[in-house]
Amino acid sequence: MQPKPRVVVDPHFWSMDRLFSPADRERLEQTVDVVWGRDEPMPVEEAIPELETAEAIVCTSWRYGEVGENFPDLRAIIDVSGGFPTALDYEACFTRGIHVLSAAPGFARQVAEMSLGLALACSRGIVSADRAMRAGTEQWLGAGNRDSFLLYGKPVGFLGFGSIAQALQPLLAPFGCRISAHDPWLGDGYLRRCGVEPVDLETLVSGSRVLFVLAAPSVENRALLSREVLERIQPGAVLVLISRAHVVDFDALTDLVSDGRFRAAIDVFPAEPPPLDHPIRRAEGAVLSPHRAGSVPEGFWELGELVVDDLEMLARGLPPRRLQPAAREVVRRLVHP
Amino acid sequence: MQPKPRVVVDPHFWSMDRLFSPADRERLEQTVDVVWGRDEPMPVEEAIPELETAEAIVCTSWRYGEVGENFPDLRAIIDVSGGFPTALDYEACFTRGIHVLSAAPGFARQVAEMSLGLALACSRGIVSADRAMRAGTEQWLGAGNRDSFLLYGKPVGFLGFGSIAQALQPLLAPFGCRISAHDPWLGDGYLRRCGVEPVDLETLVSGSRVLFVLAAPSVENRALLSREVLERIQPGAVLVLISRAHVVDFDALTDLVSDGRFRAAIDVFPAEPPPLDHPIRRAEGAVLSPHRAGSVPEGFWELGELVVDDLEMLARGLPPRRLQPAAREVVRRLVHP
Amino acid sequence: MQPKPRVVVDPHFWSMDRLFSPADRERLEQTVDVVWGRDEPMPVEEAIPELETAEAIVCTSWRYGEVGENFPDLRAIIDVSGGFPTALDYEACFTRGIHVLSAAPGFARQVAEMSLGLALACSRGIVSADRAMRAGTEQWLGAGNRDSFLLYGKPVGFLGFGSIAQALQPLLAPFGCRISAHDPWLGDGYLRRCGVEPVDLETLVSGSRVLFVLAAPSVENRALLSREVLERIQPGAVLVLISRAHVVDFDALTDLVSDGRFRAAIDVFPAEPPPLDHPIRRAEGAVLSPHRAGSVPEGFWELGELVVDDLEMLARGLPPRRLQPAAREVVRRLVHP
Amino acid sequence: MQPKPRVVVDPHFWSMDRLFSPADRERLEQTVDVVWGRDEPMPVEEAIPELETAEAIVCTSWRYGEVGENFPDLRAIIDVSGGFPTALDYEACFTRGIHVLSAAPGFARQVAEMSLGLALACSRGIVSADRAMRAGTEQWLGAGNRDSFLLYGKPVGFLGFGSIAQALQPLLAPFGCRISAHDPWLGDGYLRRCGVEPVDLETLVSGSRVLFVLAAPSVENRALLSREVLERIQPGAVLVLISRAHVVDFDALTDLVSDGRFRAAIDVFPAEPPPLDHPIRRAEGAVLSPHRAGSVPEGFWELGELVVDDLEMLARGLPPRRLQPAAREVVRRLVHP
Repeated sequence: MQPKPRVVVDPHFWSMDRLFSPADRERLEQTVDVVWGRDEPMPVEEAIPELETAEAIVCTSWRYGEVGENFPDLRAIIDVSGGFPTALDYEACFTRGIHVLSAAPGFARQVAEMSLGLALACSRGIVSADRAMRAGTEQWLGAGNRDSFLLYGKPVGFLGFGSIAQALQPLLAPFGCRISAHDPWLGDGYLRRCGVEPVDLETLVSGSRVLFVLAAPSVENRALLSREVLERIQPGAVLVLISRAHVVDFDALTDLVSDGRFRAAIDVFPAEPPPLDHPIRRAEGAVLSPHRAGSVPEGFWELGELVVDDLEMLARGLPPRRLQPAAREVVRRLVHP
Repeated sequence: MQPKPRVVVDPHFWSMDRLFSPADRERLEQTVDVVWGRDEPMPVEEAIPELETAEAIVCTSWRYGEVGENFPDLRAIIDVSGGFPTALDYEACFTRGIHVLSAAPGFARQVAEMSLGLALACSRGIVSADRAMRAGTEQWLGAGNRDSFLLYGKPVGFLGFGSIAQALQPLLAPFGCRISAHDPWLGDGYLRRCGVEPVDLETLVSGSRVLFVLAAPSVENRALLSREVLERIQPGAVLVLISRAHVVDFDALTDLVSDGRFRAAIDVFPAEPPPLDHPIRRAEGAVLSPHRAGSVPEGFWELGELVVDDLEMLARGLPPRRLQPAAREVVRRLVHP
Repeated sequence: MQPKPRVVVDPHFWSMDRLFSPADRERLEQTVDVVWGRDEPMPVEEAIPELETAEAIVCTSWRYGEVGENFPDLRAIIDVSGGFPTALDYEACFTRGIHVLSAAPGFARQVAEMSLGLALACSRGIVSADRAMRAGTEQWLGAGNRDSFLLYGKPVGFLGFGSIAQALQPLLAPFGCRISAHDPWLGDGYLRRCGVEPVDLETLVSGSRVLFVLAAPSVENRALLSREVLERIQPGAVLVLISRAHVVDFDALTDLVSDGRFRAAIDVFPAEPPPLDHPIRRAEGAVLSPHRAGSVPEGFWELGELVVDDLEMLARGLPPRRLQPAAREVVRRLVHP
Repeated sequence: MQPKPRVVVDPHFWSMDRLFSPADRERLEQTVDVVWGRDEPMPVEEAIPELETAEAIVCTSWRYGEVGENFPDLRAIIDVSGGFPTALDYEACFTRGIHVLSAAPGFARQVAEMSLGLALACSRGIVSADRAMRAGTEQWLGAGNRDSFLLYGKPVGFLGFGSIAQALQPLLAPFGCRISAHDPWLGDGYLRRCGVEPVDLETLVSGSRVLFVLAAPSVENRALLSREVLERIQPGAVLVLISRAHVVDFDALTDLVSDGRFRAAIDVFPAEPPPLDHPIRRAEGAVLSPHRAGSVPEGFWELGELVVDDLEMLARGLPPRRLQPAAREVVRRLVHP
């Protein structure tokens, strides 16, 4: 029986309870020797001895000093903020074989659920019909369904095929939709094996009845959905903007939705909150969501579950399996929020 | 090659185009010899000769005279109104082996899709958050999610396990919910084999985080969800009222939702429209839908598809397979809407 | 609480224990008032009073006298032999609304499992390789796989799309096979809705890499797979003969398999056992199975489960749901084994 | 448009046609600049210039010299032999960020299919019944099924939960088996998330009706299934030995199967072929397969598909996704066959 690895857990700006369910908290403590494990930020200077002997550090940013040749036992840095650390010397980590891991996939299921909910709220007119009922202007039965369509069998597009898209795909499966995807960070063969059809951006945009924007922001995709591209969306289609506003020309989106060219459900905005007089707040064809797809309380526990599952691997001398590893090839191309 | 059977198609108050997709219209005409097939109501007196030799009659109600010993070639009466004919001598049909069939299951998929959409609109606060965005009172991120919950893994209840429930079950499958059902018209063994747990009404109501009311109205289930029963719903749960208001004490439902005891998505009302000053129109915890779950234009074509599929069986001298047969045991216990 | 219905259970030539698992036996007794319920054949003359008041009769053949106006309370005749009763006045039953039901679908899962096992035994050469190992003539690795093929993605054909085929379909689903079906007793629309492609016999036979013969014997399908039809099977294909030898020209099958034109797994024979010198017993390309697909001991309990599930429906005054109903249109076209 | 990466493809002891389907061969050539690409082994000395500028090397072993600081552009070594290279300086590769990848998962589907086929051949007595038919000693119907059992709903065990197990899991899904797994190289949390129950070796062995031995040989698992462990297998259970004989005390296995304690399907042997007088060749309860699970001709193309899919990623400057990466933590613990 090897000794339990020492693992720094420094969850601030979350907290231990927010991150770990009671059951996972118990698993955590059975699996590793938890260092710190408190809600306040770990005072780095005083903690240096513990840091120096840690085999893993669970944190929301990197603020523990130069990796260099320090931290001789360190095997994994686990970021639970939702992204990857910015102020980290990745090259040093890669050379030394320190895994740099993100718990971001822990958000995928709840965001995918919200994406489906927003899509149906648009395609079936759920939000606008409720608004009409409250105003006493509703139309009943078929008269109220003139702009509705069924998701069953419709062509669906994914802009980005990362963890959210991969969690959304099974939720769409029973609807029998044909799914196309555009993701310049993935090969066509890989996408086909995942059951989606790789397409170029124009085909994606013009061919989808429901278009899910799920791409992580990168140095390459700012305003990728330009006005010109957005104008190719089918009349009556539904765009679901989840991740991130960075990817869209938001003024163009506002104009086109306000003009009734297509409908959109929007969870992210270039500035949050948008000004009270921003026209998107009055657009009939919009479903507006104040960045709520990924912050349901119980959902945070999925991050903790991923962390404990991979600390179990670490404790057995094995490579991680559930957290997302930083890849040398792409980590520098990500834009940190 | 046997001759094509003569089939009266009298779709009023729908129309031929509403009921049959172009492809199914073509299949229909290849499969049977269509009699009438126009949008206006068939004038019954003049039509008697054609009626007398019909092997099937597709209609929205029975207004063609006594079955008795008439209609010597008749093998099927197919109701496309969404229910079963009222003014029909079922006993005569059963004795003579005339199938009485309803296309109601053709509505199941679109109603199931709406049921899921309404459930997510409630559980994820999609409608209320959009309302707040428009009023400029929204709360962002976790602050806006205090009452939200994830559908994944939650206990779900079905009141009624007919065609809608059976179409909703696969849509819920990827969420990994445990599903309980209460349906006094189905045996426990049958329900278990369908993958749902049979429970009594009280267990269903108190044990479900999301409760779908999907029961067809019957002489036995008026206000089955009485005030006393509704009070047993879990705080914070979601009730989705789809079929039918008949089953619920609507005043009690209005009170409890207005008081914030639980949330509800409501597609059917005791009177439609409800009065403009009905308090349900102002209840924060309600998602209101003006009877729109089952009337999406493209959805009607599923009724036509069922009809043509079973006319194909009839044309081959075979029993129907897709339409719902009237069963001697239950048809008289249904309440006609 | 209505009284429990009186139900005659006369399981001979099976037995109570063979038909009902302990759990289902208990459910049976809780659900209905069991009359007879012994392993010996019920002595009909003495039993008349009980028969006369039975609401259902569970039996392996009909030997209880004329239905006519007798059995005034009778609502269901349930045959557990694997087929439908022969000596029964169906017309009287249909007129009086007595359900005539068969537990045959209870065999479907075990037969489907065996069908898949036999197909893989052929396609992967499992039986012939074992034979070679025992003779010391085996070939290793790729050298032994020259005639093997993978089931993944291959075109599969079903001759007959009844309960066995419908139980086999989910077992094939993870292999991603495209399935075609030929079943003259089912409409094309129905087949498409079930996820199989309706095709004519010739297309089925020539287009399938694995052809499952699953058709119940009827007055119409004797030797439907004639020599001429069998000759159209692809070289190297696999035929799985499950139900029934009636459907095949067995001499032609023997010749073609003996000649190595294709391979076959055979569970049913025109005479059972076939003569010891029948050439099929020596055919290298055959996998031979002495009618064992449907008689695994634990499998019989599925028949009992269907029976109790539908007696529960009966006890609640509801129509049966799980047993197979005799349909006026087809029952007379079945050939009784 | 970046230039195509130069990729050495040196497939000997396979060949280009064995490894790549025509479609993948075409994709390969469109995606990368193929160096060598012939069936004979690449003559290493003469090829040095091409090797020196390669971005990836596809090979069946490492015989291209010291990695050290050589091969300045090298980003991936792809082994298509079915394992990982032995004579390779992994540390140098890891430090320099050279991916070392194995196409072994390309074998998984065909091996999983064979595993299921072998399991059914045992559990349903397919091989022994065919043997009896040929000897004229067969028993018919239920008499021949006394030792048969259905796979449906049975407890299944996986020893090892790598790529084969993960390909077998979906094939078992429609049978509704509860699956337990023992894999000391995987954490319990990870296994649970994959839908299998992590258990210790004894629980696995004693609790499974069908036990699949799927573990890759390691320095830790030689004869892990010792005589003592094998004796805990349930009477009448089925053991399927796929990967590898290394894991089993083969003498004990032979004794126990010969004694009829349980049945076994065996695809791998300590020496291949086993001596002609080896008693396993005469064991009634064995299904013997001369190492044929992973060498079906068309199956090799799955290796090529994985290779081309990941070369596409490489060509786009992205990390591989489909091939199996060598992990620092485990590669040295593997035993090379």
